[in-house]
Amino acid sequence: MTAHLGKMVRVWSLLVLLTAAVISHAGASQVLRGTGDLGLIIERASGSVVIIETTGQTKLGRVEGLGDLSHASAVFSRDGRFAYIFGRDGGLTKVDLLRAEIAARVIQSGNSIGGAISQDGRLIAVSNYKPGGVRVFDAENLKMVADIPATMKDGTLSKVVGLVDAPGQKFVFSLWDAGEIWLLDFQAGPEPALSKYRNVGRNPYDALITSDGRYYVAGLFGEDGLAKLDLWNMDAGVSRILDGYGRGEEKLPVYKMPHLEGWARAGDYLFLPAVGRHELLVVDASTWREVQRIPVHGQPVFAVARPDGRQIWVNFAHPRNDTVQVIDVPSMTIVKTYTPGKAVLHMEFTPRGEQVWISVRDDDRVDVYDTRTMEVTQSLRAEKPSGIFLTARAGRTGL
Amino acid sequence: MTAHLGKMVRVWSLLVLLTAAVISHAGASQVLRGTGDLGLIIERASGSVVIIETTGQTKLGRVEGLGDLSHASAVFSRDGRFAYIFGRDGGLTKVDLLRAEIAARVIQSGNSIGGAISQDGRLIAVSNYKPGGVRVFDAENLKMVADIPATMKDGTLSKVVGLVDAPGQKFVFSLWDAGEIWLLDFQAGPEPALSKYRNVGRNPYDALITSDGRYYVAGLFGEDGLAKLDLWNMDAGVSRILDGYGRGEEKLPVYKMPHLEGWARAGDYLFLPAVGRHELLVVDASTWREVQRIPVHGQPVFAVARPDGRQIWVNFAHPRNDTVQVIDVPSMTIVKTYTPGKAVLHMEFTPRGEQVWISVRDDDRVDVYDTRTMEVTQSLRAEKPSGIFLTARAGRTGL
Repeated sequence: MTAHLGKMVRVWSLLVLLTAAVISHAGASQVLRGTGDLGLIIERASGSVVIIETTGQTKLGRVEGLGDLSHASAVFSRDGRFAYIFGRDGGLTKVDLLRAEIAARVIQSGNSIGGAISQDGRLIAVSNYKPGGVRVFDAENLKMVADIPATMKDGTLSKVVGLVDAPGQKFVFSLWDAGEIWLLDFQAGPEPALSKYRNVGRNPYDALITSDGRYYVAGLFGEDGLAKLDLWNMDAGVSRILDGYGRGEEKLPVYKMPHLEGWARAGDYLFLPAVGRHELLVVDASTWREVQRIPVHGQPVFAVARPDGRQIWVNFAHPRNDTVQVIDVPSMTIVKTYTPGKAVLHMEFTPRGEQVWISVRDDDRVDVYDTRTMEVTQSLRAEKPSGIFLTARAGRTGL
Repeated sequence: MTAHLGKMVRVWSLLVLLTAAVISHAGASQVLRGTGDLGLIIERASGSVVIIETTGQTKLGRVEGLGDLSHASAVFSRDGRFAYIFGRDGGLTKVDLLRAEIAARVIQSGNSIGGAISQDGRLIAVSNYKPGGVRVFDAENLKMVADIPATMKDGTLSKVVGLVDAPGQKFVFSLWDAGEIWLLDFQAGPEPALSKYRNVGRNPYDALITSDGRYYVAGLFGEDGLAKLDLWNMDAGVSRILDGYGRGEEKLPVYKMPHLEGWARAGDYLFLPAVGRHELLVVDASTWREVQRIPVHGQPVFAVARPDGRQIWVNFAHPRNDTVQVIDVPSMTIVKTYTPGKAVLHMEFTPRGEQVWISVRDDDRVDVYDTRTMEVTQSLRAEKPSGIFLTARAGRTGL
C-alpha cells in the first residue's frame, strides 16, 4: 500500500465516522413532531417507561434505568416535551419524550411517594417518606432549591403524602404521622413561606385538589371523614366533611386504599370510591354532602370522569381487579361492565375524551377504548404496565 | 498531482458535500421542541400570524400570506403542531408552528366566519356566509369531505354562524337567516347525519358550547333571550332562556355584539357580557337564571375566566376599548382596572392561568400579565394584533 493510498484510507475512515456521527445526530432530530398527543406508560417491574402517542395509538420508544417504579407517577413540563417521573426509591427522573432518553436524574431521598409541578413549570416538588418531608427541585436541571423537613414537635420527621400543586406557585401536602396539612408558597421566590394546619385528623393517607385549585381534601386512615382546606379562604382553617367516609366502625377488610386523585367531578357531583365497600359515593359538589350510593362490582380504586362528565369509569381492588365498570351520570346506573384481564391498574382519558387507555398489568397489555363505540381499537404490549400519563396533564392543576 | 492524490481530493470533496448536506438537514430539524407552550397572534391587517411561546414569552416566527384575517380565529391539531386559521375571505390555512410555514391552504368559500375541529382531530369544519353553509375538510390535507349547504325552505342559502365542535364527532351551528340550529354527526363516518331544530328565534348571531360539551346556546339578534339545546337530551328540542338578554325594548346603540364564546364559567356561575349595556350579567349555571348584574366600564365584548375561576377579565367595545377590568368572583367586585392602550381586542390565558396575553391593536403591541403580581412582564410588537390562540385549546371542547 502506498503512503498516499494509506492516507486516503485513513481520511476516508475519518469522514465515514464523521458522516455517521452527523447522520446519527440528524436521526435523533428527525422526531420533529408535536407533543400534545404524547404520553407514557409506567412499566413498574422493569423500571422503564414506554413513550406513546394517541393519534395513531402507537409506541414511540422506551426508556430504561428509572429504578423502582412501583406506585410511580409523572407530571409534565409546560411545553409537553419532558416528563418528571417519581419513583418509589427516591428517584426523580426527567425524561425527554422527543428523544426517548433520560435528560436528568437524581436520587433525592430514600423513599418517596409522588410529586407535583409548580404553576409556572419551574419547580418540581417531591413528597418523601424517608427522610420525611418535601424537596423542591429546579425543573431545568433537577438541582435542589428547597428542602422542607416535616419536623414534628418531638423533633422526628413525619412521612409526607398527598402532595399537590395549587395556583399561585403553591404546593400543599399532608403529614401522615403528625396529622397536619402544610402549605408551601413560592410566590416571593426560592425561599418559600410555610403555613401549617395542625390537628386535621389522624393519619392522612392521600389527598386531592379540585381542578380549579380551590379545595384541598385529605383522606384520613385513622378515622372516618375527610379534612378540607379552602385555599380561597385560608384563615378559616381546615374543616371536616363526609363524616361517614372512611373505614368505619366495622373495620371492613380494605384491600387497597382508594386513590383520592381518582375522585371524579361530573357536573354538580363528585364520585368517590367508598373505602372497603362495593360502592361509589355521589357527593353534592357545592355542599360536600353525600346524596347517593351506587353499588359496583368491587372495592373501587379509581373513579375517573370522562372529560365531558357524562360517564364515570371505575376499576377495582384485588381480588376483583379484572373488571372495569362504566356509570352513566344522568341515570346514575352502570351501563357497561368490561373484564379486560388480570389486574387493571389505571385508566387515562385523552383530554377531549374520545379515547381511554387502560393498563392490564398481569396480561402485560394496555388497551385503548373508543368511548363512542365502547370498543377496543388498539392493544399494545407493555411489561407489567401500571400508571398511564398523557402530556395534556401539563395544562391542568393538581394532576 | 498523482492519480491517488487526485482521487483522494475528489473523495474528500464528495464527503464534505455529503456531510454538509446532512448537517443542513439536521439544522432544519433543530427546532426540536415541545408544542404545549406554543401559540399564535393574528395580525389582522397584514394577513400574517406571529408564532409565540409562553415559557420565555418570545416570538418564534412569523408566517405571511394568509389573506384577510379580520375576525380570524384558530383551532389546533391534537398534537399541538398545526394551527388551522379561519380567515374572513373563505381562506382556510394550516400552519406548521414548528417550521413556521404554511403546510396547506385552500380558499374554501367566498366569505366565512370561524370553524371548529372534531373531537378526534381528523375533521375541520368551517361556517360560511357565502355560499351559506358548512364545509368539512380532512385535517391532514384540507381536502373537502362534506359540503352542507344551509338551504332554507325557499331554496336560498342562509348564512351560518356559531359553529362549534361537540363530543362524539359532532358539529353544531346556527342559521342566521333561517332561525335554525343544525347538528352534524360524523360518528358513522364521512357521510354525516343531520338534525335540524327549526324556529329557534330570529337571527341567531353567535353561539357557544359549555366546556363539557353539553349545552349549545345561541344569541338572537332579532329578539331578546337565547336559544339553548341540551345535547344530552336532544329530543327535548330547543328551549328559550334569559328572556331579558338581548338588545331589549329600548334599542340601545350596540357598538359591537359581544362574543358568546367569551362567556365565562367560574364555579357555579356564568358571566355574560350584557348587550348594549355597561354591565356583566351573572347567571346561575344550573338554573340558567340571572342572579346579579355587575356595573363595568363599558359595553363588554369578552368576559374570560382565569382558569381557576377566581377572576373574570373583561374588555370593552369602542369607544371604551382602551380598558380591561378584573372582577374578583367571590366578592363580585372590580379589583383592578387597566388601560393597556388603544383597541384592546382579545385576552388569552395560559392553561394553568399564571399568564394572560392581551392584544392592543392600535398600539401594535401584545402585553403579557403575570396574574399573581398583576404586573406586565413582557411586551411584544405585533402588527395590528387581534386574536391570540394557544395550543392548549387543542385539549378543550368548543374552543
